Amino acid sequence: MDTLRDMLRLMLVPGLGTVRLTRLLDTFGSAAGVLKADFEELARVKGISGPVLQALARKHWNDSEVERQLEVLETIGARPVYRWQNEYPVYLAQLYDAPSLLFVRGKVEHLNRPCLAVVGTRGPSLYGREMVRKLSEGLAAAGFTIVSGLARGIDSLAHVAALDAGGTTVAVLGCGADRIYPAENQKLAERIIEQGCLVSEYLMGTPPEGKNFPRRNRILSGISLGALVVEAGATSGALITANLALEQNREVLAVPGSILSPASQGTNRLIQEGAKLVRDYRDILEELNLGAVAQQIEMKEILPASDTESLLLKQLTTEPVHIDEVCRSSGLPVSTVSSTLAMMELKGLVKSTGNMQYVLAREARQEYRVKVD
Amino acid sequence: MDTLRDMLRLMLVPGLGTVRLTRLLDTFGSAAGVLKADFEELARVKGISGPVLQALARKHWNDSEVERQLEVLETIGARPVYRWQNEYPVYLAQLYDAPSLLFVRGKVEHLNRPCLAVVGTRGPSLYGREMVRKLSEGLAAAGFTIVSGLARGIDSLAHVAALDAGGTTVAVLGCGADRIYPAENQKLAERIIEQGCLVSEYLMGTPPEGKNFPRRNRILSGISLGALVVEAGATSGALITANLALEQNREVLAVPGSILSPASQGTNRLIQEGAKLVRDYRDILEELNLGAVAQQIEMKEILPASDTESLLLKQLTTEPVHIDEVCRSSGLPVSTVSSTLAMMELKGLVKSTGNMQYVLAREARQEYRVKVD
Repeated sequence: MDTLRDMLRLMLVPGLGTVRLTRLLDTFGSAAGVLKADFEELARVKGISGPVLQALARKHWNDSEVERQLEVLETIGARPVYRWQNEYPVYLAQLYDAPSLLFVRGKVEHLNRPCLAVVGTRGPSLYGREMVRKLSEGLAAAGFTIVSGLARGIDSLAHVAALDAGGTTVAVLGCGADRIYPAENQKLAERIIEQGCLVSEYLMGTPPEGKNFPRRNRILSGISLGALVVEAGATSGALITANLALEQNREVLAVPGSILSPASQGTNRLIQEGAKLVRDYRDILEELNLGAVAQQIEMKEILPASDTESLLLKQLTTEPVHIDEVCRSSGLPVSTVSSTLAMMELKGLVKSTGNMQYVLAREARQEYRVKVD
Repeated sequence: MDTLRDMLRLMLVPGLGTVRLTRLLDTFGSAAGVLKADFEELARVKGISGPVLQALARKHWNDSEVERQLEVLETIGARPVYRWQNEYPVYLAQLYDAPSLLFVRGKVEHLNRPCLAVVGTRGPSLYGREMVRKLSEGLAAAGFTIVSGLARGIDSLAHVAALDAGGTTVAVLGCGADRIYPAENQKLAERIIEQGCLVSEYLMGTPPEGKNFPRRNRILSGISLGALVVEAGATSGALITANLALEQNREVLAVPGSILSPASQGTNRLIQEGAKLVRDYRDILEELNLGAVAQQIEMKEILPASDTESLLLKQLTTEPVHIDEVCRSSGLPVSTVSSTLAMMELKGLVKSTGNMQYVLAREARQEYRVKVD
């Protein structure tokens, strides 16, 4: 709680952005360390100067707002996830501009399952509506967490398809975690909190302003192994996500469409520029080098792919085992264990039972079987 | 006429195919040389043995059929074009299995203009019909000769669009040049003979058998800089053309379409496997490294791109000059002159006036201007 209070104090310093906050935390070791630092120490940190330096050195924290933030967080049941925690999304943590703190409502553990961003236009055609449903269902059934932005159109449809397929989904918000935008998605947001989670880097009460969405998109793709653009007009915001995904070294995948359809202008151009054309969700497994997995799943001959996987399999039973216990018994670092288990879950070898606990998935394997059309 | 008679004698030897005929011609220097060769000389040629060797050595030519062939050729106004002639398509001549003789009805000179194969399903959707028209019109107006197979569907529509745009088109047949298949394309074939040409490697009277079409397709792509597949089902013959084009080191281009459209299954898969996605005919100019050309044409600032082009420009006037004269005055070999003039024609620098004669195209440039939608 102290950490959260300290982090909120820092996040409320006007003008102190993500990258400089990370630099301060890295320099002084913790939020408390930053709060204690004096003018001279602070001034030595690259980029800390002017009003931000003054504000940090003067230590006039906005504690009334900090308390208000804590109240709202408690009311909505959001929990903080710090960059230095295991629960923080592994891939997102690699980004230089990853937020130091995420506010999460729902099941945090889904952030470290294999994620795929599914995005697109707010005004899809009938074709787009059908394709996002088919692909998201297939991906969710194959074990992917579907990540999107809770926007109208393709985003919402991707969330719904994942939920309907009994899969999991993550919505990354461009506003505070206490606000649902657009309002019509209130019911959907509640379902997502049940079966997945809502994620935001913004303080409570932050309105869904236009400038937030491109920033939000970097988290969307940052969490994910790749970004699938289902339909996008020539100037769709989904193209921003695709570009960010490329910058982040993620796979970019797109659904082709008629040249005459405005909603496929952006996706066709992406393919022309090198995005992978997707005809089927299995193309995506293939493209992410999970093709062998899909095949194995179809053949129902699931074998561990590495020594690490073999070792971890031996630590698990049909009763839930906590990830800390797996680390202890295997002697492997928690980072290795969590990422390996996530991949093993995708392959249908193990199954998360929540609260960082895992079981062998031999009996549960059916859920991960790839459906053949 | 003697050469043609001798070639027909050889082509009528049962079992003697294209590649071995070429080898014989290369070995003995001419058709007459092959006819005179004795058993021992013939037996030394790789692949010449068994019944073919016997037939060649025995020299029992089917001269009645030769005379019949000559009659039909004269009746339909077809002319022979030999591999060793300048009129023979430059790109086709590079293939190991290029026919030694083509029968051509119409304007032979179009075979050495920049050609693009436009192919696709015999059963196009409304989308395919619209796309083949738009793309073929644009390409024809930009100076390309549209090459296709006179089949129903995409092929016929490509020919028609090129003709309607005032461009030129070449139909490569899978039967004798005296037969039009399908019969419903009789009128179209007549238009093609007027504004372009019909080409076949088959003897007169050869029926349009299934086995001929894959072979025909190698000529279709072999003449061309690339092959554009507009619409193709999962098992369309157009995919054979695409594969041949790849083997021949030609560009393969395809129009994307809805994943749900059967007629786009093949084209989407081609793109997935590396074919270039085409949204617009200018994409094709770009892909064939003629993008700069298109831009130059749009800017109406046409400049020679090389010393060869500059030199050739100096030999030309607004009065037609024969290509032999250009060779003599420039001191360049005919192969260089003909291929350079073909490219210059695409760029709108020069214009063919038929009969291997060229003029400067300064005044005529408008015809080559790229239309902007």
